[in-house]
Amino acid sequence: MHELAERILAHDVRAVARGLRFVDDRSGGYVQLLKDLFPHTGKAVVIGVTGNPGAGKSTLCDRLIEAYRKEGRTVGVLAVDPTSPYSGGAILGDRIRMGRHSTDDGVFIRSVATRGHLGGLSQSARDMVRVLDAYGAEVILIETVGVGQDEIEITRTASSTLVVMAPGLGDDVQASKAGILECADAFAVNKADRDGADSTVRDLELMIALGGETAAAASKSRGHTVHSEVAAGSAVVKDGAPVPERWTPPILKCVATRGEGIAEVVKALDLHRRWVEETEAGRARRQLRLAEEVREGLREALIEAAVGALGAKIDEAVRAVGARELDPYAATEKLIAEFRGGG
Amino acid sequence: MHELAERILAHDVRAVARGLRFVDDRSGGYVQLLKDLFPHTGKAVVIGVTGNPGAGKSTLCDRLIEAYRKEGRTVGVLAVDPTSPYSGGAILGDRIRMGRHSTDDGVFIRSVATRGHLGGLSQSARDMVRVLDAYGAEVILIETVGVGQDEIEITRTASSTLVVMAPGLGDDVQASKAGILECADAFAVNKADRDGADSTVRDLELMIALGGETAAAASKSRGHTVHSEVAAGSAVVKDGAPVPERWTPPILKCVATRGEGIAEVVKALDLHRRWVEETEAGRARRQLRLAEEVREGLREALIEAAVGALGAKIDEAVRAVGARELDPYAATEKLIAEFRGGG
Repeated sequence: MHELAERILAHDVRAVARGLRFVDDRSGGYVQLLKDLFPHTGKAVVIGVTGNPGAGKSTLCDRLIEAYRKEGRTVGVLAVDPTSPYSGGAILGDRIRMGRHSTDDGVFIRSVATRGHLGGLSQSARDMVRVLDAYGAEVILIETVGVGQDEIEITRTASSTLVVMAPGLGDDVQASKAGILECADAFAVNKADRDGADSTVRDLELMIALGGETAAAASKSRGHTVHSEVAAGSAVVKDGAPVPERWTPPILKCVATRGEGIAEVVKALDLHRRWVEETEAGRARRQLRLAEEVREGLREALIEAAVGALGAKIDEAVRAVGARELDPYAATEKLIAEFRGGG
Repeated sequence: MHELAERILAHDVRAVARGLRFVDDRSGGYVQLLKDLFPHTGKAVVIGVTGNPGAGKSTLCDRLIEAYRKEGRTVGVLAVDPTSPYSGGAILGDRIRMGRHSTDDGVFIRSVATRGHLGGLSQSARDMVRVLDAYGAEVILIETVGVGQDEIEITRTASSTLVVMAPGLGDDVQASKAGILECADAFAVNKADRDGADSTVRDLELMIALGGETAAAASKSRGHTVHSEVAAGSAVVKDGAPVPERWTPPILKCVATRGEGIAEVVKALDLHRRWVEETEAGRARRQLRLAEEVREGLREALIEAAVGALGAKIDEAVRAVGARELDPYAATEKLIAEFRGGG
């Protein structure tokens, strides 16, 4: 077994940091590390936290960490940061985030820069979740900016996805909601003490209703409840509530800066976790996600293998296309034939 | 030759619409269509227009179309729309956009939904640009929301990228700028009549300055000029100005809703086009982009070929991983070996 794997399984904090960097960089031997860790994974609850810029995702994550730690659960966080590494954004982000929890070794936080991950960011996120899972993190939060297709793909690596909204983020935000709808397992309407929170809730209700009628995969609007009271103890997700066979994303109001409404969000996510594990629909979704992972892993490994095998032949194809001796489509076909022919 | 290719080359508007749909859907035979069209491409100026939600990209694009049409140039627009197709966002968007230009057959606008393009959106955009190029569009605008990695990749299919900013879009917007910096060939600070426009300009200057010192690829801050007057005829990009060997992204203030500052943006983009064509650095960048295209095309074609060749073997791998008989990494290696072995 990989020596690093042994140390990660022994809950060595420096080993997990190295392991995450190792996997993120796709350093030589990272696949073996993942193979060694795989049998020790599958226990963590993986929660995607996504939403538009300004919705307050980081603050909400901070509150969720606090809530999980109070329950005695260890937490891992992957913060997918769209800033370039050289801007210092990711590193700075880590320091700021660590501030509150830096003395708590039940929390492990790591920023992931999105640059240089062409085609492989969600695969990389999946692999890093496995490292945290093997290390022993019981709850893993993946925080992403939920705007691009890329970010939406990352949320699909989580078993539950929380979409964070906030009132008054402008018209284009409304437009971008539709793409988010399908991956939301719960909505948190943050900054719910601000004007416009009720209208955000109504927008979400309407969107779910519309989605439910035109897309089979989307939730039905019927029976959908809006949970409007903030921190008023409105136990909309009742303790010991039965797990529904059909999941409808609840809409939960909260004020993360003041810690209001957080308990409700935690309850909703716990119930969703049970839905994934205990219902047929939940298990079917899990299987679908697994199929996606295998296909996506295949996509990435194929191009890696092809680049390794073809080497300079790719450069020659680029030259020929540049000189317009060959069109790019014919160039690709030729390269694939050579790869398959054992080139 | 593909019959559709002949009709597209004959400037048939219904044929180009069909061709774009054909290519976007990856319908059978689309590669042959692209091969037929390829020798007739390479003439269009391709401009990426990107920026955060709310920056006013669509309005600016509308003004750019107007400006190019006044010069007698035909325009094609690909609006990459993050809303799901079923929400009607893309179709509705087309109708709204077409409103102003719908009676002008020198303008062709098409919305592209981002869903269902896993791993292939920028390839698809590139192919659609080729269709518009062969059809005879002289200027092609690609409008994207510039937040995710995905969107940034799309802008790399353009030869010039205009990043649209607006004052007062919140703190997280600042954070996302860094990722955008490297792909910007020019910045438009839209809504420049609003409070905070000067501070947005200063933020951009600072960002360019920081980027210039830490990343070799980024522009140097020295010699950087901010063009602060809006529509005051401050011909910062002088007519007949010499093409600089090193390109520094100009920062141009404008008010798209009132059509102010648009002429400056057009001039800056024209100068950048000349930089790409006439300088060594510009040609080197073009070659680099071409290399990216070949690699990316290879990536997509490989997975397509592998899925076609492996078929049910992939489903079997998913089952084995689900049953934890196999880890996903070993499953992938096995599939690739079978693909290369002529499976």
